[in-house]
Amino acid sequence: MKIPNWIKQRAYLTPNRPAITYEEQTLTFFELYERVSQTAGKLAKLGVKQGEHIGVLSKNQLDFAILLYSLQHIGAISVLINTRLSAAEINFQLTEAKINRMILDHAFLQYRDQLEVPTVLFSELDQTEENNLFKEMDYFQMEDVCSMMFTSGTTGNPKAVQQSYQNHWWSAIGSALNLGLSEKDTWMCAVPLFHISGYSILIKSMVYGMHVRLYHQFNPSQINQDIVEEKGSILSVVTTMATQLLDEIRESSYPSSFRCMLLGGGPAPLSILEACKEKNIPVYQTYGMTETASQIVTLAPEDSMRKLGSAGKPLFPCEVKIMKDNNQALPFEEGEICVKGPNVTKGYYFHPKANEESFVGDWFYTGDIGLMDEEGYLYILDRRSDLIISGGENIYPAEIENVLIQHPNIEDAGVVGMKNNRWGEVPVAYVKATNISKDEIKRWCADKLAPYKQPKQIVMTKDPLPRNATNKLLRRELKGRLEASKDED
Amino acid sequence: MKIPNWIKQRAYLTPNRPAITYEEQTLTFFELYERVSQTAGKLAKLGVKQGEHIGVLSKNQLDFAILLYSLQHIGAISVLINTRLSAAEINFQLTEAKINRMILDHAFLQYRDQLEVPTVLFSELDQTEENNLFKEMDYFQMEDVCSMMFTSGTTGNPKAVQQSYQNHWWSAIGSALNLGLSEKDTWMCAVPLFHISGYSILIKSMVYGMHVRLYHQFNPSQINQDIVEEKGSILSVVTTMATQLLDEIRESSYPSSFRCMLLGGGPAPLSILEACKEKNIPVYQTYGMTETASQIVTLAPEDSMRKLGSAGKPLFPCEVKIMKDNNQALPFEEGEICVKGPNVTKGYYFHPKANEESFVGDWFYTGDIGLMDEEGYLYILDRRSDLIISGGENIYPAEIENVLIQHPNIEDAGVVGMKNNRWGEVPVAYVKATNISKDEIKRWCADKLAPYKQPKQIVMTKDPLPRNATNKLLRRELKGRLEASKDED
Repeated sequence: MKIPNWIKQRAYLTPNRPAITYEEQTLTFFELYERVSQTAGKLAKLGVKQGEHIGVLSKNQLDFAILLYSLQHIGAISVLINTRLSAAEINFQLTEAKINRMILDHAFLQYRDQLEVPTVLFSELDQTEENNLFKEMDYFQMEDVCSMMFTSGTTGNPKAVQQSYQNHWWSAIGSALNLGLSEKDTWMCAVPLFHISGYSILIKSMVYGMHVRLYHQFNPSQINQDIVEEKGSILSVVTTMATQLLDEIRESSYPSSFRCMLLGGGPAPLSILEACKEKNIPVYQTYGMTETASQIVTLAPEDSMRKLGSAGKPLFPCEVKIMKDNNQALPFEEGEICVKGPNVTKGYYFHPKANEESFVGDWFYTGDIGLMDEEGYLYILDRRSDLIISGGENIYPAEIENVLIQHPNIEDAGVVGMKNNRWGEVPVAYVKATNISKDEIKRWCADKLAPYKQPKQIVMTKDPLPRNATNKLLRRELKGRLEASKDED
Repeated sequence: MKIPNWIKQRAYLTPNRPAITYEEQTLTFFELYERVSQTAGKLAKLGVKQGEHIGVLSKNQLDFAILLYSLQHIGAISVLINTRLSAAEINFQLTEAKINRMILDHAFLQYRDQLEVPTVLFSELDQTEENNLFKEMDYFQMEDVCSMMFTSGTTGNPKAVQQSYQNHWWSAIGSALNLGLSEKDTWMCAVPLFHISGYSILIKSMVYGMHVRLYHQFNPSQINQDIVEEKGSILSVVTTMATQLLDEIRESSYPSSFRCMLLGGGPAPLSILEACKEKNIPVYQTYGMTETASQIVTLAPEDSMRKLGSAGKPLFPCEVKIMKDNNQALPFEEGEICVKGPNVTKGYYFHPKANEESFVGDWFYTGDIGLMDEEGYLYILDRRSDLIISGGENIYPAEIENVLIQHPNIEDAGVVGMKNNRWGEVPVAYVKATNISKDEIKRWCADKLAPYKQPKQIVMTKDPLPRNATNKLLRRELKGRLEASKDED
């Protein structure tokens, strides 16, 4: 199964509709197609081939969006790199995703010498002459990989999630069948394009023929002002963003043209949902992950108030079940959340063992804990047992622990999340070590980990860390210790 | 690829939304699911099996819609029979589609003894005890056939078009991506459910979770009243229906809640489009056929006035091209309309030759004549060269000619369409015959053809009918004669 190249198809079907606005500039679908074709011609001149894996590193900006479309346009695979990573972390991902070329924004010039593959700056790409003979894709094969993004899971090192055109297509369709679709819509994108939350908005623009308003970064007063001026009808947020928007807007309220605040990235505190209810902001709590090409469960409009706190029901083409001890759980029984649908990844790139562990038939075992009520509404209780969600970013304790125990003086380490008013959670490390100070440990982490992953607090311990019979670290016990020590404070 | 059984999925996802209203009764998606399950249990009790071809004959009514869903629910294939056919025509189709059982409404009781397969009346089905152990479908396989409907083409006898779940699914999705989607929508269905125009509305109801208002028959004052009372937002019509609605509504106008009049079934006269423009009725001209599971080309909202008379551009997942002498035509060059997309049938049932003639690779050659302008808007010039469209029904001249020349006294016959104010066109027969009166010919046709197909005028001729070197009837010349004789009147 294949579908027409959506960039060309939109330039044909709805050439004059606005496609994307960034700062003061708006491109129609036809203008965007022209820009994409030019950039694709430049990429071709540099020798970028169909099927090649290209690393991309940029903050949100128009050129980044155009680059991502251009890579689709010539059939190359975008490997999206988190802008907060250290050079060491990026190099790991380059190897992992078999990248041999990387395109980056000038803002990341300082990485250039540290990266292990050839790099091209946006400005250099721009100055490249076009190869007008390059072959644009006429169709996208549904099963072809379109993009890759990293996630760590419980095994420590990041793995590349393969997202096919089919995954993205069905994610966009499933969302439209749930949220509805109007030619008046403008989707505001203040989440990073290197995350599935942002990238999926670019896809929706093409599938729906919808206007996207792209932001360099999240600025609550700017977003609130644009909503009030009716410049946007849908906004994707994570919890910390919603909190800041609510803090900033204070007494005023949103116009009726604003029809959806899509709230993802971890369970939302009831207080936020209630504040939105009070201010009449239509908030849709949602559950999704890189592996499901964004949302897979969303609370439908008619239930948004009646089922406060639930993530809702699956999107139309998808299914969800709760598994407990290899059996499907009863209503209200806790267990592992499993999902299925055409938006679910075919697997991690070159990780057969992880794939074997994560899939049973068509069902993807998320590692997240939840339950369903008697009507089949999903409630998320805990993300991937040990996952720390900090300002919408996923932090995997095992990855930080791996960095810690590589230090010769560190014998053992365990990382857990600590509640934080601004970020939701921040990582805290328990370390068993000799002849090393907390500052030295922090410097060691700073060299190897993105700032948001670096432990905000180090707890030195002389006792062995809690482990079970098979030597698996019991992070929940560490978390218990952390909470107990807080209570003592 | 498979999707969840949409009847079950809707009962789970949106149980309390209204699904269907007929006369004074409204069923929610959950109530509809219950009714469908009951009927499926009764069908199972009668021995209806997954994959079995079941003929259905009914005018629009709630039980008919429930029956069609029930057949999907147990995986049987609905073969939809036009209610205007004669018993002889139905028997031909029963054989053609390998039907060995037929379900019909009491209104067609008189056919019972004439049909060549066992029949079950709706009332008898209703009195059947349920088999509670029947297996409902958990999933629909996309490539499985869901329904069959008949079309004749130029070869004379009707052929069954196979419509898969995939065809229906993508048709619904393509339409939503073009027309938008709102949970406030109600689609009014006053076109027959045995046509793809009506059947596709039932599918959309399930895919979108949308309310359908079903009518037993088209009554312009009822429809106008319901629109004015905001009981419907979208209406499917053919030209004659649009004319009657416009005549009936006179000075009043439609409320803004009415957002789409979808106008199909042949090229629309400019006068209607202009009248709609004047009355501010949002009319979307559309082009589609049984083989494309309804619309494949529709005029987008922003173009509805600028491109009056065009059928528009393809739906998002579809493509259209014009072929002339085995080459793709230039803009404004006339040729055969060819279409491609996931909503296009995989072919006629058991008609390898017709399939070979109609498909080149993935492209379906419609037989219709049209052109594209420089922006890629499609204009339909002529349906299937000889097709007569009478009140939205397709009439194939070859089928009527076949009936005529079977009469021992008729040597040759040719049928063409004649303009008619009420129906658009009606069939006229040119007959070369000896020792037979016009009345006898009319009686002969009345026995064998549905009333709308019976020639409304017989022209006796002593000269041979115009044929080309390969003996192919030149119906255009006959049409020329008909128009010349009108001018003489």
